Amino acid sequence: MSSPLPQPVLVVGTGLVGTSLGLALRRSGVEVLLTDRNPEHVRTATGLGAGHRYAGEPVGLVVVAVPPDHIGPEIARALAETSAVVTDVGSVKTAPLRTLEAAAGIERYAGGHPMAGSERSGPLAATPTLFDGRPWAVTPHRTSSAAATAAVEELARLAGASVVRLSPEEHDEAVARTSHLPHLLSVLVAGRLADAPTDHLALSGQGVRDVTRVAGGDPALWQQIVTGNAAAVAGLLTQVRDQLDVLIDAVTTGDRGSLGEILERGVAGTRAIPGKHGGPSRPTVSVFVSVPDHPGELARLFADAGASDVNIEDVHIDHDPARETGLVELVVEESRAEHLHAALGERGWETHR
Amino acid sequence: MSSPLPQPVLVVGTGLVGTSLGLALRRSGVEVLLTDRNPEHVRTATGLGAGHRYAGEPVGLVVVAVPPDHIGPEIARALAETSAVVTDVGSVKTAPLRTLEAAAGIERYAGGHPMAGSERSGPLAATPTLFDGRPWAVTPHRTSSAAATAAVEELARLAGASVVRLSPEEHDEAVARTSHLPHLLSVLVAGRLADAPTDHLALSGQGVRDVTRVAGGDPALWQQIVTGNAAAVAGLLTQVRDQLDVLIDAVTTGDRGSLGEILERGVAGTRAIPGKHGGPSRPTVSVFVSVPDHPGELARLFADAGASDVNIEDVHIDHDPARETGLVELVVEESRAEHLHAALGERGWETHR
Repeated sequence: MSSPLPQPVLVVGTGLVGTSLGLALRRSGVEVLLTDRNPEHVRTATGLGAGHRYAGEPVGLVVVAVPPDHIGPEIARALAETSAVVTDVGSVKTAPLRTLEAAAGIERYAGGHPMAGSERSGPLAATPTLFDGRPWAVTPHRTSSAAATAAVEELARLAGASVVRLSPEEHDEAVARTSHLPHLLSVLVAGRLADAPTDHLALSGQGVRDVTRVAGGDPALWQQIVTGNAAAVAGLLTQVRDQLDVLIDAVTTGDRGSLGEILERGVAGTRAIPGKHGGPSRPTVSVFVSVPDHPGELARLFADAGASDVNIEDVHIDHDPARETGLVELVVEESRAEHLHAALGERGWETHR
Repeated sequence: MSSPLPQPVLVVGTGLVGTSLGLALRRSGVEVLLTDRNPEHVRTATGLGAGHRYAGEPVGLVVVAVPPDHIGPEIARALAETSAVVTDVGSVKTAPLRTLEAAAGIERYAGGHPMAGSERSGPLAATPTLFDGRPWAVTPHRTSSAAATAAVEELARLAGASVVRLSPEEHDEAVARTSHLPHLLSVLVAGRLADAPTDHLALSGQGVRDVTRVAGGDPALWQQIVTGNAAAVAGLLTQVRDQLDVLIDAVTTGDRGSLGEILERGVAGTRAIPGKHGGPSRPTVSVFVSVPDHPGELARLFADAGASDVNIEDVHIDHDPARETGLVELVVEESRAEHLHAALGERGWETHR
């Protein structure tokens, strides 16, 4: 199913994503050229081995990796100035497309969106493994040529990602639901903490930390993302407001039936999220282990866990500086928890679930 | 500042929290008696070593550890049937108190709320370390005696927790903000996922998983918690609805200034959350390491990280079954990231930030 990648690949914009893409493609020997408004960034990216400086030579594929507000114009320029296939890595797909509808060569464009990033930015944060195993939405529009779409899918695969093909409209609905809505509601929860008394915030547990983590993201970037996907985001926000009205009414009147329905629907929603990497979601449970707070102990714990032949799905650490102990949460498949519990207990660890 | 704990301690309700409390107090040699409507649970809890079966003997302190709906009546019963100090471990403080206002001996009651739990329940999930280093709100009311408050604070300390003293009203405002509001908005986000197309959910990343994790909690329990704290919760939900209206308007009209203000306020809120265990919040960054997906490698990584003398604040693992590699995220203090990055690189690990 894979077709050869048109080469060389020109990456426009050598920030975190553009430079990481160069590094990822170089692993497979793809010829990569780099350009950026900021010559310093190009120097850094070429220095890291992400490709060579672009000097106007013919290219086979252009990847636009610039901030959301500049994506439309950069795609238009690439279509006008080259005869290459053109794609982008922006988080919103229909808004830039609307500005391009009349562009000559628009059949050479097929959009893309790797679901990978970091709270850091710039070429120095880049890594060849950024896309490994991540979904990469490929979003051909109505007149994208089959060759353009095939080239973008091959690009995503060579970068290490898993292709998810969606129309631009479906993509924007999907990210409104799985990314933009969660972000904005996380922001509203965090906003209620900003002026809370300090001794009230002392009761903060892991729950509120998890719910508000993404609210710490760069406001300038999120402003561009949200306004670029305004229609889909506003639609979902309006649905949430309707649910919120029902919820306020249920809480105020003590209507437990209605409250229960909303809570049950939330549980169903958490179960609808697929397992990481698109695999089926397997039920997991946590085994907690008390670990003395020095580094060698953590290594010893993982050695013992490894010897028990149980796969660790995730780990969380909660330090307690006052006691110099840490509480390590090992997340494992439900069916293996009992075995791990027993195996660690035998090796002298204080465990609980 | 600590005064002797009145003994024996009677724990009413041998679920996760009650049994864990018995186990925690037994570490310090405290005499613990146990009772529960379910005799099977008492048998399990005594079998685990959490204390002895209660047979009506005189007690010094009663801890009510039953589901939210039953807390008020159980406190009233303990005040009537014993001359002991009485406390509870419920997540809401003013609602049970209102039912007790006229109770004889109410000065012997001072409320409490350990910020500790698990998605599991029942005595078999209990552990003596459940409260270690966690905040334990102690909430004397207007007529609580100094002796009752001192006894409850000593109980919390002996269980391993850090005491945070708040009035019942302040406590309920605090948990509405740091626990009940985040829970309910997480539920609303998750509710929007319940009927989403599967190929849209394929784009789910870590953000939506974090925001919706708590929404998987037991609806029956949360129904009781939320209706027990209705006034404070409804007040905050109404504030959020007002902000949501502003947000919908900003997104619909493309008002970037107003959107930016809301996003900035969210960032400020995430920074207001204290560090774990009440310490100052230190800026952390993540170092990512590609790790072959077999157990020994994880032990080797932690051994090398330990040798680099950098304290690991938290860990996340993202498996990629297709490639048999995992991506391990090591969260460390910002000032130590560069050093860890270099140290792991020297030892042959493929790292990035």
